[in-house]
Amino acid sequence: MRMVDIIEKKRDGQQLSQAEIEFLIKGYTEDKIPDYQISAWAMAVYFQGMSARETADLTIAMADSGERVDLSAIKGIKVDKHSTGGVGDTTTLVLGPLVAAAGAPVAKMSGRGLGHTGGTIDKLEAIPGFHISLGNDQFLENVNKLKLAVVGQSGNLTPADKKLYELRDVTGTINSIPMIASSIMSKKIASGADAIVLDVKTGNGAFMKSLQDSEALAQTMVEIGNRVGRKTVALISNMDQPLGFAIGNALEVREAIETLQGRGPADLTELCLALGAHMVVLAEKAENYDQAYERLQTMLTTGEAIDTFKKFVVAQGGDPGIVDHPQRLAQTAYQFDVKATESGYVEAIAAEEIGRIAMMLGAGRQTKEDAIDLAVGVMLAKKVGDHVTPGDTLATLYANQQQDQALAQRTLQAFRFSPQPIQVPKLIQQVIR
Amino acid sequence: MRMVDIIEKKRDGQQLSQAEIEFLIKGYTEDKIPDYQISAWAMAVYFQGMSARETADLTIAMADSGERVDLSAIKGIKVDKHSTGGVGDTTTLVLGPLVAAAGAPVAKMSGRGLGHTGGTIDKLEAIPGFHISLGNDQFLENVNKLKLAVVGQSGNLTPADKKLYELRDVTGTINSIPMIASSIMSKKIASGADAIVLDVKTGNGAFMKSLQDSEALAQTMVEIGNRVGRKTVALISNMDQPLGFAIGNALEVREAIETLQGRGPADLTELCLALGAHMVVLAEKAENYDQAYERLQTMLTTGEAIDTFKKFVVAQGGDPGIVDHPQRLAQTAYQFDVKATESGYVEAIAAEEIGRIAMMLGAGRQTKEDAIDLAVGVMLAKKVGDHVTPGDTLATLYANQQQDQALAQRTLQAFRFSPQPIQVPKLIQQVIR
Repeated sequence: MRMVDIIEKKRDGQQLSQAEIEFLIKGYTEDKIPDYQISAWAMAVYFQGMSARETADLTIAMADSGERVDLSAIKGIKVDKHSTGGVGDTTTLVLGPLVAAAGAPVAKMSGRGLGHTGGTIDKLEAIPGFHISLGNDQFLENVNKLKLAVVGQSGNLTPADKKLYELRDVTGTINSIPMIASSIMSKKIASGADAIVLDVKTGNGAFMKSLQDSEALAQTMVEIGNRVGRKTVALISNMDQPLGFAIGNALEVREAIETLQGRGPADLTELCLALGAHMVVLAEKAENYDQAYERLQTMLTTGEAIDTFKKFVVAQGGDPGIVDHPQRLAQTAYQFDVKATESGYVEAIAAEEIGRIAMMLGAGRQTKEDAIDLAVGVMLAKKVGDHVTPGDTLATLYANQQQDQALAQRTLQAFRFSPQPIQVPKLIQQVIR
Repeated sequence: MRMVDIIEKKRDGQQLSQAEIEFLIKGYTEDKIPDYQISAWAMAVYFQGMSARETADLTIAMADSGERVDLSAIKGIKVDKHSTGGVGDTTTLVLGPLVAAAGAPVAKMSGRGLGHTGGTIDKLEAIPGFHISLGNDQFLENVNKLKLAVVGQSGNLTPADKKLYELRDVTGTINSIPMIASSIMSKKIASGADAIVLDVKTGNGAFMKSLQDSEALAQTMVEIGNRVGRKTVALISNMDQPLGFAIGNALEVREAIETLQGRGPADLTELCLALGAHMVVLAEKAENYDQAYERLQTMLTTGEAIDTFKKFVVAQGGDPGIVDHPQRLAQTAYQFDVKATESGYVEAIAAEEIGRIAMMLGAGRQTKEDAIDLAVGVMLAKKVGDHVTPGDTLATLYANQQQDQALAQRTLQAFRFSPQPIQVPKLIQQVIR
């Protein structure tokens, strides 16, 4: 088999065989196929696409390129969840304890990642004392006992995906639905998930800006799941404005706590209940979606959800006192309010711009080497549809540098107002299974 | 400027600016842009193409990536010629002396190349004593005196093209008309040509199999020439069967001599007269094409053409006695005749297959390191349209290994016969200027 023939086959719009895809991924993982052939192939895939069968083969080849996490010691159906990224997406922090409280085991390996804020692992480290490295036995034991453990990704999971993603990032080949879908699904499969719930964001703050692309991505991932024997459900959720109010690591922990106490933002709460209900159904801990949804909703008010969170924090060495004393989370030196200068209804909040502002405050990483400031971020006070009058606080910037005050003006410009009442876009736009 | 942005721009079907193309070629030449970005860009070009302006900019950027040959010491308009490759293409050996005899200066730098036979340089080395390295002063003096000198390519001409071609070869991005056109034209421009005549082959023995692709390539190259101030004319010539009878280095020298004596194969003679006439017109050594054509045709019979060839051979140290004593050219140990086993008209001669047979006999190189046997090759005895009866010689294999006799059967299979008379395809299918 020669890589150049595989490139030409894909370039000419033909389907690659399973053997060809395995040859390609194995050869690339082992440095036997050079970057310059893989990038040409990736560009050919960009233009010609991949069939559902090819995409599933690519997913499995990447999942098999490194270790696979063995979760067989955990009782029950392990359900994992993935969001395609957005601004202020605090769902994982809420979903873990919520779904665990309902009896569905959540054994989560999470990354730090690049972006507007840190990854789930960074956010958890905002809890004083919390540690994200557990020995394998401890990890499995915690899940069996509490139904929940979250650790940093360790080991050599999907090295082919990592290498391919880094190459795609510098060769203009990120935006290919089969490659995005197989990248996400290969990591979930290698992490040991039996079933997968996907939260595909759509809108100006999402990676996928159009509903059409989001649908295509969701459908492709669900199809991969079905082909490789993992029950998979995808929700398409709106990301035209940030989700919830908080964008920042400690700020999001606080928001997650409030949500688990039943007093979180409406949109974040709704999305977590919907995602969680699907997870509980896939884990076979409820008869159907409505039953699961109601049960989760009840647990937010009975205290079962927040209790599970506390136990989870304790089990990983953290201070559960943050629940009742959120001021124990990292605080910033400065808070700058962003005030409305006109009357009207909030028509739009440019999600990506808010994300960039959070990043400039220090909440996220641009490169893997960047340090992040867990305390800083943006706290929205108004969301799309809210009415404001001059002087109302639209948002508060949590900053550790005086000069960041200049970002207040930029935050104000991320808001757009309308004299007429605004119809809030539907949060959950579709369910694909 | 970032290469990834340039890749995405091309991927999305936009035109690159001159500055972007220069950045890309300069960066690649200087090893500042990695292969994997260039190959992704090349695949994007494969799908999205390039405008005429972009193609011209790419050509000039590649011509400027290394040295340019300075031919200013040569009086007159220097006309160069390029063939896009075929089987048994002896045109350069004939055209040089022919056009020089008509007063058009030919200062040719030629390569060895890969293929069914060697390049022009290899063929000339089949002449005993001939040397292909002249000092620069001697090279220029010979052209001023004899109107003809041919030397091996020296110096660092178009390194960007060389690097890009090698990358394209292993990444499925050879077959892109703007990249093929700019590759050819950049070399001609860097070699100092004032005007260019192109012989674009079409048919099963050509790189471009379809007339449509050949036309597109020819038009693209002519447009580049016009945009960069080089008068350019392209002929599209048929390569469904080998050109002339000889495929092999010494064999082609002998055929070139016969052609310069006015007794060469009809097709080779016709093509050389047509290409030569265009060269003479571009060099302003004749009023018009018909005048030029007639003058060249006359010189084949008056001996002016073959006399120029002899002087050229002497000037570069070779033995002019080969003209009258062609047996002084390298001979082979064996000659195997290929005999017809049926009656009929020759309907087709698979040109590529004949080329491969010549290569298996040792006439060409597969890799730069291969040694070639100047004596061996295939000599056709029949061409498309000829009538044969069983026992007629169709071709003779010139070989230096007894076991090559086995190739006779394969040669026979390259011929296809018809009971009806065959219409010979038109040799020169189009002229584009």
